[in-house]
Amino acid sequence: MALRPLAAGARVTGIITLLTDFGTSDGYVAEMKGTLLRLAPGASVVDLAHDIPPGDIAAAAYAIGRSWRAFPPGTVHCCVVDPGVGTSRRALAGQAGGMAFTGPDNGLFTHVLASTSASLVELWPGRPASATFHGRDVFAPAAAKLALGAGLEDLGTPVRDPVLLRAPMLLHDGDDIVGEVVHVDRFGTLVTNLPGSLVRGGQVRIGAAVLPLRTTFADVPPRSPVAFIGSGGTVEVAARDARAEVVLGLGVGAEVRWSARTRTGG
Amino acid sequence: MALRPLAAGARVTGIITLLTDFGTSDGYVAEMKGTLLRLAPGASVVDLAHDIPPGDIAAAAYAIGRSWRAFPPGTVHCCVVDPGVGTSRRALAGQAGGMAFTGPDNGLFTHVLASTSASLVELWPGRPASATFHGRDVFAPAAAKLALGAGLEDLGTPVRDPVLLRAPMLLHDGDDIVGEVVHVDRFGTLVTNLPGSLVRGGQVRIGAAVLPLRTTFADVPPRSPVAFIGSGGTVEVAARDARAEVVLGLGVGAEVRWSARTRTGG
Amino acid sequence: MALRPLAAGARVTGIITLLTDFGTSDGYVAEMKGTLLRLAPGASVVDLAHDIPPGDIAAAAYAIGRSWRAFPPGTVHCCVVDPGVGTSRRALAGQAGGMAFTGPDNGLFTHVLASTSASLVELWPGRPASATFHGRDVFAPAAAKLALGAGLEDLGTPVRDPVLLRAPMLLHDGDDIVGEVVHVDRFGTLVTNLPGSLVRGGQVRIGAAVLPLRTTFADVPPRSPVAFIGSGGTVEVAARDARAEVVLGLGVGAEVRWSARTRTGG
Repeated sequence: MALRPLAAGARVTGIITLLTDFGTSDGYVAEMKGTLLRLAPGASVVDLAHDIPPGDIAAAAYAIGRSWRAFPPGTVHCCVVDPGVGTSRRALAGQAGGMAFTGPDNGLFTHVLASTSASLVELWPGRPASATFHGRDVFAPAAAKLALGAGLEDLGTPVRDPVLLRAPMLLHDGDDIVGEVVHVDRFGTLVTNLPGSLVRGGQVRIGAAVLPLRTTFADVPPRSPVAFIGSGGTVEVAARDARAEVVLGLGVGAEVRWSARTRTGG
Repeated sequence: MALRPLAAGARVTGIITLLTDFGTSDGYVAEMKGTLLRLAPGASVVDLAHDIPPGDIAAAAYAIGRSWRAFPPGTVHCCVVDPGVGTSRRALAGQAGGMAFTGPDNGLFTHVLASTSASLVELWPGRPASATFHGRDVFAPAAAKLALGAGLEDLGTPVRDPVLLRAPMLLHDGDDIVGEVVHVDRFGTLVTNLPGSLVRGGQVRIGAAVLPLRTTFADVPPRSPVAFIGSGGTVEVAARDARAEVVLGLGVGAEVRWSARTRTGG
Repeated sequence: MALRPLAAGARVTGIITLLTDFGTSDGYVAEMKGTLLRLAPGASVVDLAHDIPPGDIAAAAYAIGRSWRAFPPGTVHCCVVDPGVGTSRRALAGQAGGMAFTGPDNGLFTHVLASTSASLVELWPGRPASATFHGRDVFAPAAAKLALGAGLEDLGTPVRDPVLLRAPMLLHDGDDIVGEVVHVDRFGTLVTNLPGSLVRGGQVRIGAAVLPLRTTFADVPPRSPVAFIGSGGTVEVAARDARAEVVLGLGVGAEVRWSARTRTGG
């Protein structure tokens, strides 16, 4: 991550995305949307994800880290997975890659910040906010201002030490590369941090399984685990027509080791 | 609730919101959206919530009651949680607070009607509707007409006795105020009807717990219950990093009592 | 299904719908939306359904089959339930009923193709795609092109043998008509393929139950099963305030038999 000097207001297209852990069985997402549409008339509010597991900052960071760059320049990403709301955690807004974003300073933007240079501010306190719903009272208003063309210098004070999630393990062990599972998706696929650019052929060892590195999860019999380079650019382990997390009994944090040479045993 | 004479068509912005219990594993929400976009070209259809528990009118009433006012004037709210579809329950449209709404006459609009004056009509029968999907066949067409500028007088006959949900208990018992849990949200937080404007400091008794009234749920150790004034303006009981409904073993209807003076025991 | 010669580009309204089994706990839907909005600026992206059970092609086919016609002409439907991604299954785009669609060639469009004439092409390979996320890398770009006015002839090579799901049983047995359950919806309602146009009165036999054919599911006591002609135009079996799938212990594939004459016993 490299923090740049504050830039002038990003070019806005009127797109504001929403990523929360609010689900849609209460009215919380609705209150945020109403607030955005009232404060930024004409904005196009786009749902990114609302079924992030409650309070799961790492899952939210993974989702926004994968998807933010896919949007057109000028998009504003409003991200609220905020188990620390009401504590002294800071409220952030930032600009990166021609887009703007806002959300709590809890590590949510770790992967965004790891992938590009960014400018960040801590939001100035606005009108009195509830102690427990900054999505509606703090971040939606900030997102609306950004969508209307406000610059970061209009919103707060520069920040150079945002909270970042622990970087997952990635190390060389002789000729092997050792990483870990960083996300389990809806299909039970284990997403690792082993960069696809560093591995070619060879085999992947994860839990009790030793798997040749293949190009897609369909190259194996049903229910068998398979390792391949996934759509996010890193090694993933899936099971055809089954959940790899269940088949292998593994989850986030599990060690994964790539070896260039195919071998068996320990 | 105060019913006003019928007003002229509400100003429309082209926003139509959708709140249902349809989930998104079938095509029902899709059929409603298609109908809205076909009948009201250019409308901006905004999802409020689709994961309301099936048939849970109280949960739907809570969600629309919290969120409807956040939207810009002219918004049309189309709300379909309708376990009585196909019975003789009436189909409603209304105007309140510069917005319009439509949905079944089953109590869904209880909190909307409690918070402002409103005009209501029973929808005239339109083209033959299915017996079981009035969301697509009755309410989406009515919402489209409202979004296009139709007045209530174009849609139906005045109604002055809408179905309302039982008002939750709220009473004074000496110096105490006694209310009840009216909603449990996705995070397991118990939302009560004790108005934040009536309580200050003191303590909250709920189930076996006696809790000081605090300002946010982060002021306690993890998994401890905490009472505070929530973002909807009433007392809520949450548990930090846990579900208060589980920690306390309570749900909708549980009594909650606020006392100005802090004391222990019974 | 009747395949027509390739037509010129469909009229586009800028609406692109999305139907997936991705849920919204990862960033996959977000990546697709970003891609669509970047490649087709100004498009209106509408969520149809993302909670299709993972890999359930039949459920997805049912959802798009019910809803696609509700949309205005020019709409582009982008449908990605794609358990065979990475195999040799073809990628399709098509035009039918004044609309366009794109998705994998796995039976997803069975009901669309059964209901109208259509033109189909197999998409030419585009820029290098991931092996596992054609929603983002193949179908969203194709949908964007279609929304911008591209014709099928700009996208691929004509296809006349799309994969179709097995047609459910529908046969005459003396005076009876025998069909099967083709979908179970969020409310546990059993949707059959018995056409409402072929049945009138009489009774429906399903599992151990013999039910008079009624007009709505509200005509019976709570928890009792009831057969009626549903909003999709076929016979459905529901249970009032309960899940018919649980009350009757039946699911997709169960036989359902309609008899014109009401009788009891076997």
